[in-house]
Amino acid sequence: MDISDWRRQIDEIDDQLLELFNRRATCSIEIGALKRRMNLCVCSSEREAEVIGRALRSNRGPLDDAAIRRLFEAILEESRLLQVLVAEQEAGR
Amino acid sequence: MDISDWRRQIDEIDDQLLELFNRRATCSIEIGALKRRMNLCVCSSEREAEVIGRALRSNRGPLDDAAIRRLFEAILEESRLLQVLVAEQEAGR
Repeated sequence: MDISDWRRQIDEIDDQLLELFNRRATCSIEIGALKRRMNLCVCSSEREAEVIGRALRSNRGPLDDAAIRRLFEAILEESRLLQVLVAEQEAGR
Repeated sequence: MDISDWRRQIDEIDDQLLELFNRRATCSIEIGALKRRMNLCVCSSEREAEVIGRALRSNRGPLDDAAIRRLFEAILEESRLLQVLVAEQEAGR
């Protein structure tokens, strides 16, 4: 396989990553809506620790645990930002 | 669906994300090895811009383009770090 073959594989992976990021975000929005309806705090550091812990326990590399932690922290950060955005939109209605 | 149902969905998505992150990293390692064999520069800001551009063109949300850009930049950063690590290991052999 040459460089362009590997890059094609990466492109396919990136298409799946994009879809999964957005599907995950949709789930977060649903959870945020349920929490607001139940007057629960939207943020949950316990759940975030669980998400990171799950990923680290399953990680077989080649990315090391520090890299996986940073990537899932980035995902959780976007999830938090999106929930704030959605809550603001709801409040502004 | 209640909160735990949505969280189960997120867990399944996270399992797939973890697998894709590591599969992508394996592709990057292969590309790095090919580049070193051909004496090419490992980094390619052109290719990085292409990766981000592809993701943004396909993005239908709910994550906005800024979020998708940040997530793919985080992935590219880990890819760079890993390639440096692998190159150092090869040089140290």
